[in-house]
Amino acid sequence: MRGRYRGIHYLVLGILFATVFIFGQPAASQTVADSLPSWNDSPAKKAIIEFVTRVTKEGGADFVPPAERIATFDNDGTLWSEMPIYFQFMFAMDRVKELAPNHPEWKDKLPFKAVLDGDLKALAASGEKGLVELIMVTHTGITTDEYVKEVADWLATARHPRFKRPYTDLVFQPMLELLAYLRENGFKTYIVSGGTVEFMRVWTERVYGIPPEQVVGSTFITRFQTGNDGMPALVLQPKVEFIDDGPGKPVGINKFICRRPIFAFGNSDGDQQMLEWTAAGSGARFMGLVHHTDAVREWAYDRQSPIGRLDKALDEATARGWTVVDMKHNWKVIYPFQQ
Amino acid sequence: MRGRYRGIHYLVLGILFATVFIFGQPAASQTVADSLPSWNDSPAKKAIIEFVTRVTKEGGADFVPPAERIATFDNDGTLWSEMPIYFQFMFAMDRVKELAPNHPEWKDKLPFKAVLDGDLKALAASGEKGLVELIMVTHTGITTDEYVKEVADWLATARHPRFKRPYTDLVFQPMLELLAYLRENGFKTYIVSGGTVEFMRVWTERVYGIPPEQVVGSTFITRFQTGNDGMPALVLQPKVEFIDDGPGKPVGINKFICRRPIFAFGNSDGDQQMLEWTAAGSGARFMGLVHHTDAVREWAYDRQSPIGRLDKALDEATARGWTVVDMKHNWKVIYPFQQ
Repeated sequence: MRGRYRGIHYLVLGILFATVFIFGQPAASQTVADSLPSWNDSPAKKAIIEFVTRVTKEGGADFVPPAERIATFDNDGTLWSEMPIYFQFMFAMDRVKELAPNHPEWKDKLPFKAVLDGDLKALAASGEKGLVELIMVTHTGITTDEYVKEVADWLATARHPRFKRPYTDLVFQPMLELLAYLRENGFKTYIVSGGTVEFMRVWTERVYGIPPEQVVGSTFITRFQTGNDGMPALVLQPKVEFIDDGPGKPVGINKFICRRPIFAFGNSDGDQQMLEWTAAGSGARFMGLVHHTDAVREWAYDRQSPIGRLDKALDEATARGWTVVDMKHNWKVIYPFQQ
Repeated sequence: MRGRYRGIHYLVLGILFATVFIFGQPAASQTVADSLPSWNDSPAKKAIIEFVTRVTKEGGADFVPPAERIATFDNDGTLWSEMPIYFQFMFAMDRVKELAPNHPEWKDKLPFKAVLDGDLKALAASGEKGLVELIMVTHTGITTDEYVKEVADWLATARHPRFKRPYTDLVFQPMLELLAYLRENGFKTYIVSGGTVEFMRVWTERVYGIPPEQVVGSTFITRFQTGNDGMPALVLQPKVEFIDDGPGKPVGINKFICRRPIFAFGNSDGDQQMLEWTAAGSGARFMGLVHHTDAVREWAYDRQSPIGRLDKALDEATARGWTVVDMKHNWKVIYPFQQ
């Protein structure tokens, strides 16, 4: 901004905020109180508000400067649903169907045959090797630009089997409010997910207000190539570079964010080390887990679930007094469209 | 910030900026004109200012929204000197000397013997394998916290052999001004360097005003471990994960920054692909190279130098009309301490 424009800009801002300050105090207080309207009054809501109040109180013993207010969130099961299977895997399966006409051999070959037959039992039986092959074939061998387009097109047309809505509708309204509340209080909000960065970065800004550079995730080896037209491109290779899950999460945090979070939220054993890493820093800390307890409005699962298993992390949360959100009782609504 | 505090904050800001606006216009204009005081009037300076003016002019044909104003800078040879050898390598050699008492076997073993004898010729003869071994031994096998302390201690005491000053004094004053000028104009400034992220992130905020999360570099595999005291730690492993050099630079940019730069500066063939990647985007673009032409105040080297070789990238810059900064003629001063 040039000097003249900046002068006007701040003048207007100053008048505006001075007006709010002088005339708007009751309204301002009300806004603070209503930052988490979809959360029922509960120990979880109280713990969040108390923590944020403590670390943002200037001159207070637990004050944390804004640059260090790092909040990290798992994605699958923490910010959006993950049933009947991780949504990125739904994308992979839809992409197998899309690519199948060019691969007649898939009709008789696992794991592809299982996907094309809609036989999830046979798919599960193909084991980790089969699932990894499915992800590789559907996520690599194309440029990053082509991949982004594939994801965007899928999100625009695909519908969740139970709710018959776009997958990005299945985000948790209370967590959207929490993200916004933290940002209003000077926090920088990050996603730290086992999903791949390329998949998430297409839509996290629009859906969560989290820009792509604040999304930490698993990565494929990527290669710089110059095409026949002389244009450079980045091509996703069928080789995993980094798995941002479990013990990988603190590694990903160190690599991409470079600061230790003071606030972290997950929902499964894959988030346990992220919460431990957060807890091990000095000063005030907040560790939270979403517990899926609502079979009616969402799903209920924990210790026995192959997807989003919450077992060891739940024990540790109980032992160490971390905040556990009981979805059924703590949240007034689950999804924005239910409001 | 709570409503009351924010009100006061903006009120003060508003009054302050309104005052500057009303009484300070000549001063404001002067500030803009003097943003690059260490740059002589030259085509390079003109190209920079013209580019920044074009992309920040609201309503102009080349306007770029602030979120997309990404500027990437190589570090060694672009933001600070790299002679007689990359400074991170000087750190590695000093660390070999520090660790030597615990490794009596190093006295007779290359490449360590060469470092301990101060025999750079023998060191060079140990080839890439020797140099990699040196980096591994001195940069890994410790926790990230321990490593940060090692680098900070070294920076506080080590002196450059020619200038007898801390290495962080050997940054280029004109480039510091350029970084600040870009940020004043809404750009987000990043480092994209072949050096390792852990080495740079210790000091880039203090020296360049670039926070650690805006430093892209090479990485080692890092592992999450829980110590005997129950405290989690991240341990650097003697295995390279990613080399952020040459064709790795656009890959690192995609991985960490997620947006294509519109402005990029380098000084060697290792930056060629970053400049190509920047140039290949749509809309206005700026590609720049620092050419080391000043043997008196700094160093003069290009096509034949083993360190910071500038050969193919110089040809491409000439062919495509990229900006080449002639250090000797374009810069009034090199280092801040020469002002």
